[in-house]
Amino acid sequence: MGEQGKAKRGIPAKADFNAWYPAIVEIADLVDKRYPIKGMDVWRPYGWKAMKYIDALTHAEMERTGHDEVNFPLLIPEDLLEKENQLVARLQAAREAGIDVSELRFDEEVEGFSKEVYWVKHAGETELDVPMFLRPTSETAMYTLFPLWIRSHSDLPLKTYQIVNTFRYETKQTRTFIRVREIHFFEAHTAHKDEADASAQIEEDLEIVDNIMSDLCLPVIISKRPVWDTFPGAWYTIAIDVIMPNGRTLQVASCHHYRDQWAEAFGMTYEDVDGNHKNCHQTTYGMSERLLGAVVGTHGDDNGLIFPPKSAPIHVVLIPVAAHKSEAVMETVTSISDKLRSSGLRVHIDDRDKRAGKKFYDWEIKGVPLRLEIGPRDIENGTAFAARRTGGKQPINIQDIVVEVSNELKAIESELESRTSSIMDEMVTPMESLETEIKEGMIYEIAFGGSDADAETLEKTTGLTILGECMTQFEEEKPCIISGKMTTKRNHLARMY
Amino acid sequence: MGEQGKAKRGIPAKADFNAWYPAIVEIADLVDKRYPIKGMDVWRPYGWKAMKYIDALTHAEMERTGHDEVNFPLLIPEDLLEKENQLVARLQAAREAGIDVSELRFDEEVEGFSKEVYWVKHAGETELDVPMFLRPTSETAMYTLFPLWIRSHSDLPLKTYQIVNTFRYETKQTRTFIRVREIHFFEAHTAHKDEADASAQIEEDLEIVDNIMSDLCLPVIISKRPVWDTFPGAWYTIAIDVIMPNGRTLQVASCHHYRDQWAEAFGMTYEDVDGNHKNCHQTTYGMSERLLGAVVGTHGDDNGLIFPPKSAPIHVVLIPVAAHKSEAVMETVTSISDKLRSSGLRVHIDDRDKRAGKKFYDWEIKGVPLRLEIGPRDIENGTAFAARRTGGKQPINIQDIVVEVSNELKAIESELESRTSSIMDEMVTPMESLETEIKEGMIYEIAFGGSDADAETLEKTTGLTILGECMTQFEEEKPCIISGKMTTKRNHLARMY
Repeated sequence: MGEQGKAKRGIPAKADFNAWYPAIVEIADLVDKRYPIKGMDVWRPYGWKAMKYIDALTHAEMERTGHDEVNFPLLIPEDLLEKENQLVARLQAAREAGIDVSELRFDEEVEGFSKEVYWVKHAGETELDVPMFLRPTSETAMYTLFPLWIRSHSDLPLKTYQIVNTFRYETKQTRTFIRVREIHFFEAHTAHKDEADASAQIEEDLEIVDNIMSDLCLPVIISKRPVWDTFPGAWYTIAIDVIMPNGRTLQVASCHHYRDQWAEAFGMTYEDVDGNHKNCHQTTYGMSERLLGAVVGTHGDDNGLIFPPKSAPIHVVLIPVAAHKSEAVMETVTSISDKLRSSGLRVHIDDRDKRAGKKFYDWEIKGVPLRLEIGPRDIENGTAFAARRTGGKQPINIQDIVVEVSNELKAIESELESRTSSIMDEMVTPMESLETEIKEGMIYEIAFGGSDADAETLEKTTGLTILGECMTQFEEEKPCIISGKMTTKRNHLARMY
Repeated sequence: MGEQGKAKRGIPAKADFNAWYPAIVEIADLVDKRYPIKGMDVWRPYGWKAMKYIDALTHAEMERTGHDEVNFPLLIPEDLLEKENQLVARLQAAREAGIDVSELRFDEEVEGFSKEVYWVKHAGETELDVPMFLRPTSETAMYTLFPLWIRSHSDLPLKTYQIVNTFRYETKQTRTFIRVREIHFFEAHTAHKDEADASAQIEEDLEIVDNIMSDLCLPVIISKRPVWDTFPGAWYTIAIDVIMPNGRTLQVASCHHYRDQWAEAFGMTYEDVDGNHKNCHQTTYGMSERLLGAVVGTHGDDNGLIFPPKSAPIHVVLIPVAAHKSEAVMETVTSISDKLRSSGLRVHIDDRDKRAGKKFYDWEIKGVPLRLEIGPRDIENGTAFAARRTGGKQPINIQDIVVEVSNELKAIESELESRTSSIMDEMVTPMESLETEIKEGMIYEIAFGGSDADAETLEKTTGLTILGECMTQFEEEKPCIISGKMTTKRNHLARMY
């Protein structure tokens, strides 16, 4: 990690989040935004490491839950979209027959879709017979092959995922990790024997979400999106939102239950135990580099990043103090490093020829959770001086260094959890009437049992977006903000990224 | 790992390699070739795992040698090529001044380049002002940013790498892992203070090559390519070739010394200790999924794949025998599995309700190096019955299972090494005169100290390709095949993939 071509000065105050965020992602060496395509940053080593440690949490959860990793081609031939067009026709027929409104938006979306993709129409000096597009997600690519993989009930459930680059031609303002044009994307796609089994998959997805968000010390709001924010072709969408310090919510993950809506169009059927052919029910679950955006935005402070230990590229930085005065210093530092590394911790020794203060400053910017200073006097005392990135310093015992450091890291995790929960409590405030004055940077919690039309009224009146029915209901009934009828249904109004 | 939609029958004989190879990559569940774009296969879970374990060997070597992992955008704006055009102009001037022939091909190549890339000229409904192409490699993308990262000698050496998808619009016949249009690609790019430091990097690259090829039990021929096969813009190219069973050589890796040929065009200069501005010298080092192609092609046999342990998705498959007769069977299998896993081995328990023979057959196809059968009688004897995929069976002690299994895997590695070395010895035969009858499927070793013109004559006379000056010379002088002059320079003539 060099210090090539960047200034380590002038971190804006975190209070000015809209200035702080775009500055810190470069100052902390996560990305370089000088690549000459808008919305396509270069991942620098430190940022890429952080992303890969977050991916490792995802891989571990996929392994635990029996998902197999695949890797599909990036390019999708336009003619595969015919299947989706058939789906549209089917859904239109369903609409005419008065079935399920959730399906209605799909045709609009397919139209909108061509506005959002990058097209490859030329290869070499040839104009291609069939244009191809860069995947925005992989439904079309995968559901072309799934019918070849699924024959009978014994092939189900099919649980696959991939972590790949996807592309979206964003016309809105791009922001590092939050709104980009080349997306580092996780997508799980599953097929099941029936609706109930697919629903159970959504439950498992939410368990995975819980585990990963807890690893990243990120409190979230989990909501069933209203029908107009349901993913096209989905029966319902559950979205996971993080509250960023400027009061905007950032959707970091979403799960979709497709029922059997795609199955017929793509011929995704199977033979059950009795020899009958049935449609598969499907789900998807997506996450992206927004997770890193949320980690950066939520935990950082005026001095730089703060990494929750499980995503930190470096857990512990060791700073030898006055090493020129005593050979014992580097010996001790090396021995501590060896012990910590063999226990699986990620350690960096900063033996640069710089003032200690400069070193502290650099690693604070980079958000390393724990710093250990080791000088001749510490060694005499059998201790290292531990400074938590979240604040607080104390000597810890070198003898029990692995246990001591693990405890420090656990304490840092708890501190981050309690900070973010209390910030969330501050930012989410109950709204009991439509008269409430809407303040910038606040999220409003409401009791709401109304219809889609009521929800639309709510959005218009407040100028905010409704996140959808929260998966955690109120414990006691409250009057609905629109009708006054008692309900335990919880909902939120917010500004979304 | 299901058995969806494939037949487990009809593996062609390995002797008919050109039928065996394309069949086994699908039969063993590595890829699915039914994706509707030529040269873009779908990586199935088993194939992707194998590739990722090979990548893990590369990551470990990069970590050991202090390379930092980055990730650059896939898309490259066409106007960045202007820099390369400047380079061409500079090289043309050099040519006129009679300098270094190695540089001469670059202009032809830039012309040829546009024939090989996929173009993005449309996004959404917009025609882009500046067309972009999908990276075939990342020189242009990276060397646009490197000058921003390199300011002074303290920023050097800059050692970076990435593992990404790259694209080539192949017009030749495509073959899984060998010639594809979306390539799983490793590329290291380095910048140095001078030519000597860049040369030392090439030495380090060759050490890495040695380690990885040894992990994959692949004997290789390492040659300095003749000038017409030098990478465009490179001073020299060192290529690493594996001999496939049909006698064709497959280039699996290459290292390029660029000297400072790119530095001036891209402004890649630095300030040395005395305050002088100097050009960086650069190298690149590339590998790809061809490594997996070489593993598949080299080690497999009539019964399927054989994975060298270090790239095997599964090291050991455990087969419970007559588990319905004794509860001790599954208990023992589970306990063995736990012990092996905690020692870092990759274990799979095959408890499917199938005949043992069917299980053996399936795991042979998939090339799992070691199979352990555990039945009631084995347990009584305190042993498990170990069958090596390379042949040979014997009971091993359950008490020392971790040590025993590690020894088995080491023995399998040695067996693969000795097999491939002896096959290589058989296939590489000395050619002492141009009168020699050229046989299909042979590689010819020659003493050759001649000029480029002589080499061209050699290629024309034999109809074979010259691999270039071998990095390992003859121990004793031999007469050059063209001039008869004594030389220790070794070279090879072969058919290349």
